[in-house]
Amino acid sequence: MIDDLERARACADAMYANDKASRALGIEIEIPEPGSAIATMTVRDDMTNGFDMCHGGLIFTLADTAFAFACNAYDDVTVAGSGTVEFIRPAFRGDTLRAIALEEHRGRKSGIYAVEVLNQDDAFVALFRGRAVARGQRLLEE
Amino acid sequence: MIDDLERARACADAMYANDKASRALGIEIEIPEPGSAIATMTVRDDMTNGFDMCHGGLIFTLADTAFAFACNAYDDVTVAGSGTVEFIRPAFRGDTLRAIALEEHRGRKSGIYAVEVLNQDDAFVALFRGRAVARGQRLLEE
Amino acid sequence: MIDDLERARACADAMYANDKASRALGIEIEIPEPGSAIATMTVRDDMTNGFDMCHGGLIFTLADTAFAFACNAYDDVTVAGSGTVEFIRPAFRGDTLRAIALEEHRGRKSGIYAVEVLNQDDAFVALFRGRAVARGQRLLEE
Amino acid sequence: MIDDLERARACADAMYANDKASRALGIEIEIPEPGSAIATMTVRDDMTNGFDMCHGGLIFTLADTAFAFACNAYDDVTVAGSGTVEFIRPAFRGDTLRAIALEEHRGRKSGIYAVEVLNQDDAFVALFRGRAVARGQRLLEE
Repeated sequence: MIDDLERARACADAMYANDKASRALGIEIEIPEPGSAIATMTVRDDMTNGFDMCHGGLIFTLADTAFAFACNAYDDVTVAGSGTVEFIRPAFRGDTLRAIALEEHRGRKSGIYAVEVLNQDDAFVALFRGRAVARGQRLLEE
Repeated sequence: MIDDLERARACADAMYANDKASRALGIEIEIPEPGSAIATMTVRDDMTNGFDMCHGGLIFTLADTAFAFACNAYDDVTVAGSGTVEFIRPAFRGDTLRAIALEEHRGRKSGIYAVEVLNQDDAFVALFRGRAVARGQRLLEE
Repeated sequence: MIDDLERARACADAMYANDKASRALGIEIEIPEPGSAIATMTVRDDMTNGFDMCHGGLIFTLADTAFAFACNAYDDVTVAGSGTVEFIRPAFRGDTLRAIALEEHRGRKSGIYAVEVLNQDDAFVALFRGRAVARGQRLLEE
Repeated sequence: MIDDLERARACADAMYANDKASRALGIEIEIPEPGSAIATMTVRDDMTNGFDMCHGGLIFTLADTAFAFACNAYDDVTVAGSGTVEFIRPAFRGDTLRAIALEEHRGRKSGIYAVEVLNQDDAFVALFRGRAVARGQRLLEE
């Protein structure tokens, strides 16, 4: 028998093993508690856009990744239904970004998660909110 | 002297030349008219997430790229202030996604752009809306 | 037997008869076709905020009303799951606002609707998008 | 000379005196500290929609009001640029709703505010986030 945090971390490990996109972006994941996740990414040269800033889409991707790992803590496959992002300040090559996802609400079939994206100086880069939709399928194998 | 469409395409060319992130994702851009852009991306294996679907962040990134190229048609550097996305159906490895950005409103300093993301069967994958903020800097060199 | 447009209008009539909030705001509804709705409201003195503009919440309310009547066209009770709004220009006392809701996507259990809010000069006041969630209950009586 | 909290409360008083819309809805305002506001509203019969629930637009309006009073604490007229809302559970006639607005970020010209809407049982009714845009005009008279 495993406790809630062990289960959350087992779900994260199972997802991460198969998450080629997050790994290709160098994203790393920590699960401090069930319903929460921290995703970290260093802005590489090939993540910059035409204005020499980190592509906003990849900032969203980091936040969305933290969100996905936070909402998949319960061994019930859960996907993003929608997301909103406010961009606050740009990020640049070499910056280390940290996306911290917290569960704001969890219902039977859907949940709301807030994600703050901070840079290495703890300044806000973006604020994200996402709605998660549960699919009713187990994530972990027996 | 260049006309509006030539200027929009010159802006797109200048951005694209420097946009390492979009190029690393294999995104291609067309500018059908000023204020509009079409971004195309084929879902690669390294774009899939832990559920074998295209990472939602990369679908957002495609939409955000179309948005960025649409709103930078006027030789005035413009960045995303915020974005919202509704995910409608998943995309899978090998799918060719097309993000079509249209200008809904353009004011002096900000604009609103809608982006539809479609797959190769013309089915909706996602609907995006973004707010663009102009920086008052020229994009093209003299 | 009734056709789709008759059914959409019957649903709208049934909702409107009981919709005290929309009626108290003087909102009127037209159903041009199933999945679409037009809501009209004149900005009254008691709808203005501390800056002598129409309260943004009431502009949202007009858009949300058009959305609700658009998505309840199918005799399946449907409620708003989320909404986003971009405010484009203020509205003032005496302005007549028109919210035009269109169905962007309709799935089995949820749908996406876009609403444009225009003033009497056909200038954009706001752009709204909402996600509708069906409850699986009939709206019309036998 | 007044301190920050006195100034925030003076701004709120000046706005509220002129805010016919919020007063017509019976909304009351408290300013616990600069950048924060609590707006309270009891759901009246004329606030219910066709499904006997509080009209979602009026829940948004309550949140938007708290947001407006939170972001106008600095004697610089500030209006909503955009808003997003996630509806979590319905509210009913007689419910007392409380919208608590907190400042997430304040820049030179814009700010981000989060608002939680709770019912009398402290259960989430909605989560809102808004972007405020400063107009560079003083709110208080000399």
